[in-house]
Amino acid sequence: MSNSPKLLSEHTCFGGTLGFYSHLSQACNSEMKLAVYLPPQAALEPVPVLYFLSGLTCTQENFMAKAGAQRYAAEHGLMLVVPDTSPRDTGIPGEDDDWTLGSGAGFYIDAMIAPWNQYYQMYSYVVKELPDLIAAHFPVRRDRVEGREQVCQGIFGHSMGGHGALICALRNPHQYRSVSAFAPICAPSQCPWGQHVFTQYLGTDLTTWNAYDASELVLHQQLPQPILIDQGSADQFLDAQLMPHVFEQACHQAGQPLTLRIQPRYDHSYYFIATFIADHIEHHAAILYGQKQ
Amino acid sequence: MSNSPKLLSEHTCFGGTLGFYSHLSQACNSEMKLAVYLPPQAALEPVPVLYFLSGLTCTQENFMAKAGAQRYAAEHGLMLVVPDTSPRDTGIPGEDDDWTLGSGAGFYIDAMIAPWNQYYQMYSYVVKELPDLIAAHFPVRRDRVEGREQVCQGIFGHSMGGHGALICALRNPHQYRSVSAFAPICAPSQCPWGQHVFTQYLGTDLTTWNAYDASELVLHQQLPQPILIDQGSADQFLDAQLMPHVFEQACHQAGQPLTLRIQPRYDHSYYFIATFIADHIEHHAAILYGQKQ
Repeated sequence: MSNSPKLLSEHTCFGGTLGFYSHLSQACNSEMKLAVYLPPQAALEPVPVLYFLSGLTCTQENFMAKAGAQRYAAEHGLMLVVPDTSPRDTGIPGEDDDWTLGSGAGFYIDAMIAPWNQYYQMYSYVVKELPDLIAAHFPVRRDRVEGREQVCQGIFGHSMGGHGALICALRNPHQYRSVSAFAPICAPSQCPWGQHVFTQYLGTDLTTWNAYDASELVLHQQLPQPILIDQGSADQFLDAQLMPHVFEQACHQAGQPLTLRIQPRYDHSYYFIATFIADHIEHHAAILYGQKQ
Repeated sequence: MSNSPKLLSEHTCFGGTLGFYSHLSQACNSEMKLAVYLPPQAALEPVPVLYFLSGLTCTQENFMAKAGAQRYAAEHGLMLVVPDTSPRDTGIPGEDDDWTLGSGAGFYIDAMIAPWNQYYQMYSYVVKELPDLIAAHFPVRRDRVEGREQVCQGIFGHSMGGHGALICALRNPHQYRSVSAFAPICAPSQCPWGQHVFTQYLGTDLTTWNAYDASELVLHQQLPQPILIDQGSADQFLDAQLMPHVFEQACHQAGQPLTLRIQPRYDHSYYFIATFIADHIEHHAAILYGQKQ
């Protein structure tokens, strides 16, 4: 049983309520922070949940402060949940020294190698402990799907968090009904960021990497709904780190429906995310509310 | 003649371009930074300019990153210009030590007392040097009003910057055609923040304070267009620092049209600004484009 999230601060926003919380995570063996936006509809009835996973260096706050998502979540009646991007203050030597490894860089994987494996269990945290926490303490909508009652939820993210959203959805196709990403790291096994953290967190046995690589996963598991990805053409990380065309090729090969939009002149920043956030929330709302009956 | 602004960084956003610049300010005797958002329309024709003045501790970046204004500026065809809130790195002893005085707290006034008066000339910077710089280097729309050609511009702001917007507009009714504010400091001569900085920047002769106090100015100069103010009812600074009802009373006494909206449950944060930014930009666009002919 999860302990109750502790409210740290609260803001009224677009008629709903944005709260910042902390709780003791069993998966991550440490205090974790998160942000929850309850749209106005949540005061009247349970609502679907949309998880956003953030990129390198971010906390639970960046997306809520910069993406402008609350307006559309309020319009469509979606709860937004944003976890932090890693455990913090674990005491692991050097955890804050490298912005691509350790704090702010949990990569949404379960670390297998010491000392990271004691705390860096972000995959289990995001797909299991966090949804349980949200379902226990917030008004989440449950629907009956194929005879089973399920929480109605989707997931999306940016960069490292786009990678996170893709792998969480591909590994749990019944748990997340909708998925999208902004400039995701599409093939972490093939890019410097991914290779660096996978080596540190998972070790050098490459077969374990495939379980956290969207371009590998999609070859073995497809999703019924199309995946939406937006990618700026002027993104400084496009070719070396993000590699959307590797994922596009894998989706094509596997028969996975994908809408990959290359947005001319856009970069990797939140100004890019803010520009297309309305489309993404509409994508999720159409699927999450479309399966209402 | 102003020197050219130097481009520091640039982001595509809602089909337009957000640029961060620095330039050597003569008024402030130092390097000043600013942000300029050019809506897509500015690539085709000159557009009206809307200045936003930020609150205590902010830089030229907060509003552009957090308010979600670019979406509406792009919709309505308005240029957004956001200056920094003070000179920086002037060498004045203690300039960074107090968040309500010195750097981040220019208060949009021309300091008269040493050492501040060598650099802290934010009023002259905002009403004269900055508009000249913008007009010289960006596609600003000019209209013929009462036989004279004028730049088509409005001004708004938050907290300290709401105070700034009100005083700039009330002192220059022909220069700014539209004005609005989020949670402005309405009567700085009567609140602790205002009394603290006015004493340091202007001295103790209270007659000089009136020229920078909206609730005093409006008694002597009214604007033809209504002023729009949004104020959160749960704003922690409402009673002690902001005092919208003092301004409301002065407007009533002077016959100044004012729309003061008390927004239940909203606080002082950018989550409040983001919620009502669409209304404010619409307010300015209606006036700035309404006087098009």
